[in-house]
Amino acid sequence: MSIVAVGAVAYDTIETPHGTVTRALGGSLTYFALAARFFGPVSIVAAIGDDFREEDRQLLIERGIDTRGLVRRPGKTFYWHGRYHEDMNVRDSVTTDLGVFADFMPELLSDQRRADFVFLANISPRLQEHVLSQVLSPRIVAADTIKFWIENDRAGFIRLMPRFHILTVNDEEARLLAGEHNLVKAGKAILKMGARIALIKRGEYGVLQFSPDSIFAVPAWPLEEVVDPTGAGDAFAAGVMGWLARCGRINESILRVAVIYGSVMGSFVVEKFSIERLLGLTWQDIESRYRAFIELTDSHHSRWMSQ
Amino acid sequence: MSIVAVGAVAYDTIETPHGTVTRALGGSLTYFALAARFFGPVSIVAAIGDDFREEDRQLLIERGIDTRGLVRRPGKTFYWHGRYHEDMNVRDSVTTDLGVFADFMPELLSDQRRADFVFLANISPRLQEHVLSQVLSPRIVAADTIKFWIENDRAGFIRLMPRFHILTVNDEEARLLAGEHNLVKAGKAILKMGARIALIKRGEYGVLQFSPDSIFAVPAWPLEEVVDPTGAGDAFAAGVMGWLARCGRINESILRVAVIYGSVMGSFVVEKFSIERLLGLTWQDIESRYRAFIELTDSHHSRWMSQ
Repeated sequence: MSIVAVGAVAYDTIETPHGTVTRALGGSLTYFALAARFFGPVSIVAAIGDDFREEDRQLLIERGIDTRGLVRRPGKTFYWHGRYHEDMNVRDSVTTDLGVFADFMPELLSDQRRADFVFLANISPRLQEHVLSQVLSPRIVAADTIKFWIENDRAGFIRLMPRFHILTVNDEEARLLAGEHNLVKAGKAILKMGARIALIKRGEYGVLQFSPDSIFAVPAWPLEEVVDPTGAGDAFAAGVMGWLARCGRINESILRVAVIYGSVMGSFVVEKFSIERLLGLTWQDIESRYRAFIELTDSHHSRWMSQ
Repeated sequence: MSIVAVGAVAYDTIETPHGTVTRALGGSLTYFALAARFFGPVSIVAAIGDDFREEDRQLLIERGIDTRGLVRRPGKTFYWHGRYHEDMNVRDSVTTDLGVFADFMPELLSDQRRADFVFLANISPRLQEHVLSQVLSPRIVAADTIKFWIENDRAGFIRLMPRFHILTVNDEEARLLAGEHNLVKAGKAILKMGARIALIKRGEYGVLQFSPDSIFAVPAWPLEEVVDPTGAGDAFAAGVMGWLARCGRINESILRVAVIYGSVMGSFVVEKFSIERLLGLTWQDIESRYRAFIELTDSHHSRWMSQ
């Protein structure tokens, strides 16, 4: 089933201890779409400015992404300049220029309104609400957010939470949203705020999934080198939503597999700068790492039982 | 099969954000023995001073621990005063007074020399070597260490490493020992240094197990409150060695289960101050949390498949 996703298509300047890229195609929605498209159809909703390069739209189209909702508006494309510390768990936003995104209030296409799977990337709660309200009867709504929106439109975001089946936040955002330092307490508090499922992303330490009746803990894929963490969270959400949309339904079993596919997609993105790794990726790569991931975490160790 | 373990039996003063205990029975070996005894017989080797309370020896004896190797020497019992920060991943050692441990070079009892399973807690490499050299043909030798010994007797410790089947270190110690910041590289480097298996303890983020052909990643049990982290690493080692000794042999499958038992034992210890939680624990508690731990990490989700 198709996923409709709204978020930023942007130009990113990224500095990490491994190097720099300047004005590369990026933005939460770009990462999401380029990762989710491996699992099935993705239809995107975003604004781009006068400066958006036609070849970047072509790049998305060539990978099967439905870009009818990628609309050009007078002004600049969303621009983000981020700088990672030596400890790449920490980053500074040097520049965030919303450009044409600042007052973007899109109208969905008629087929997008009938979407079963909706992903709201980390844009303003007002825009998330505007998009979500146009979808007639979504089966699964997943949303992301960032510290900025929790701090600057807390009420708006909290009002939306009961409409989310899945909320993905990192550990810092979870603590801020829930007002709890302990992540187990924070995860449970987020469920009380209305989200049906909370996925707390802990970077190199993996993911904690809070469902109404259980917790699922997944370590991260052990990487020898992280080149650029940008987009890992978006690719994670793409793997989760991609698998759920592919299955067409959700239960605890399917969700756990989805979270592993999410972890796999996140682990690929950080191996190269910007979207580069996603562009070179194949479904075989994904399946191969999925199987390796199961072995990595396998306490049932069936493979080993015969030894 | 019986485990012979050498390490510190100490008095601890512990300060955490949740409170303080003064001169409580502690030390790496005490935690190890009180956790390992649930899995089978444990025989300890340690020195105590004039000030050691007879009731503390009784406490160990009543729990089935073989204390024949707990020898009294003139002087003070090992004393440690630790202070945890608000972020309990960080602690300062306010006082470390080795007391009678400073020049302790024990002679093992004849049955201890025939031990199949040997645990060398985080004492000096010289003492670890002295004990290990007396064991005739151990099947499994596991060792722990601390930053202090890596910094102060690096050569002595590295010389011992090829004799360890299992080395347990925390993330900081692994980085220091291997000279690699990335933990995957550090784990692999530790294997190259001679240890057959490296277990890197990451506190609230779980454990990474490096075997010659695989990595096993285990998250930590999600706790809503950590009262006192002291002894978690020793109890972890106890669960690992306890399960291996109970099985009487090792392969990847048994080792993965052992690492989960270790994680379970570590998760209990931190729930209360000092050794308190270990004293109140039952085998039913352990089995119950082991099963819950499998569910927590279960990507096979057989329980959910019928939903």
